[in-house]
Amino acid sequence: PHVPYAPERYPADVQLQRSREFHTLMNNRRSVRFISPEPVPREVIDNVIRTAGTSPSGAHTEPWTFVVVADIEMKHRIREIVEEEEEINYRQRMGDKWVSDLRKMRTSWVKEYLDIAPYLILIFKKTYGMHASGKKKTHYYNEISVSIACGILLAALQNVGLVTVTSTPLNCGPPLRLLLRRPANEKLLMLLPVGYPAKDAVVPNLTRKSLDDIMVFV
Amino acid sequence: PHVPYAPERYPADVQLQRSREFHTLMNNRRSVRFISPEPVPREVIDNVIRTAGTSPSGAHTEPWTFVVVADIEMKHRIREIVEEEEEINYRQRMGDKWVSDLRKMRTSWVKEYLDIAPYLILIFKKTYGMHASGKKKTHYYNEISVSIACGILLAALQNVGLVTVTSTPLNCGPPLRLLLRRPANEKLLMLLPVGYPAKDAVVPNLTRKSLDDIMVFV
Ligand SMILES: Cc1cc2nc3c(=O)[nH]c(=O)nc-3n(C[C@H](O)[C@H](O)[C@H](O)COP(=O)(O)O)c2cc1C
Ligand SMILES: Cc1cc2nc3c(=O)[nH]c(=O)nc-3n(C[C@H](O)[C@H](O)[C@H](O)COP(=O)(O)O)c2cc1C
Repeated sequence: PHVPYAPERYPADVQLQRSREFHTLMNNRRSVRFISPEPVPREVIDNVIRTAGTSPSGAHTEPWTFVVVADIEMKHRIREIVEEEEEINYRQRMGDKWVSDLRKMRTSWVKEYLDIAPYLILIFKKTYGMHASGKKKTHYYNEISVSIACGILLAALQNVGLVTVTSTPLNCGPPLRLLLRRPANEKLLMLLPVGYPAKDAVVPNLTRKSLDDIMVFV
Repeated sequence: PHVPYAPERYPADVQLQRSREFHTLMNNRRSVRFISPEPVPREVIDNVIRTAGTSPSGAHTEPWTFVVVADIEMKHRIREIVEEEEEINYRQRMGDKWVSDLRKMRTSWVKEYLDIAPYLILIFKKTYGMHASGKKKTHYYNEISVSIACGILLAALQNVGLVTVTSTPLNCGPPLRLLLRRPANEKLLMLLPVGYPAKDAVVPNLTRKSLDDIMVFV
């Protein structure tokens, strides 16, 4: 069954203005690795996750689980797992070139924000689902769908003045899945610490490519 | 070199209100397969692509190219390539289950919107880059980064009252890359027709999972 669809239509000047304002908002987004311990209202987090859940997904499988961790001990155990793996990543797995590519970001395997941020959002992709019959249900393009949802989540966070750093913790998926008791069909895709920026937060002085460098008009 | 970072801070009631309004906006997004031929201001499209370009990316590689096609003949050639491959997909590659999963969407290999939409946005991921020395530069997590950028693009489109349908045209990447003369390091990830919805646009009567089904709070 299909239903009519007629979203809001803006006058031309309003549309242009909205396109500029949203660009300005999103262009102010930065990955922030210094997060304040200040509390963040739970309802705001709920709305941000709800917003991520409006994402499109291949064949409408909605293949995502957002695990929001506020518990202090659980955050600390997550930190221990991530730092242990990340130290091995930096020392052995990534190779000199990757480590040097990251040097300008001043990142390292020490991740204080995992203790300090009021919330950690762990985004799992459901690699397959289950039919009522118990048969496996394929989730086409699940990683792409969940990454799109992550983009919408980042927009929702930026829209309410919260910061995060998108991270894909290499090799931490299996131990974090067990720690959080997620089922075998879920794989960790992203880990986002969320909160207000710390008062003395700094970010790498990066620039972004210009429109001409990313768009080709035909 | 690092710089201080202090984004806008909203009073609690404003923050909560913003989180609700953005959820409402994004929850009204639907994948629309009936697009109006009405023109869309080029500057709005530019701003939407600029917004997508604010996305985070692994090690700040910005591994994306947005090819925006407005040329009528080029759109038609794209349609021919996509329909040819999609017919084979539906008849042979996808298997009965996938096709039946898609039946409720009433999708098929006939894609009129590829001719009709004022713009087609083809999103390419740059699988690697080049150092000034000519050496290949690895793009860590390029597909995830570009998918996140696509999520931000979808938010930017929705924010200005434009519609699209996210599609990942199976097996069309190589011929479309050649048609659009993109370099060998670029791979097609997504094809989005963009415009206003057709006056009689309909969408499948789908519902979305509730917050409890997608969020786990620890
Ligand atoms: C990665 C991905 C691939 C998709 N591929 C197609 C496609 O090839 N054809 C199509 O009609 N819709 C495609 N869709 C759209 C989904 O069918 C749609 O998002 C889903 O049914 C939910 O509907 P909604 O976007 O209106 O919420 C795709 C979506 C995603 C995220
Ligand atoms: C898929 C992906 C993985 C990332 N992984 C990490 C990470 O492990 N650690 C980190 O500090 N930043 C990580 N980042 C953040 C990038 O370094 C950051 O987006 C980039 O430097 C651009 O900076 P900006 O987000 O402030 O624009 C990642 C970003 C993406 C999209």
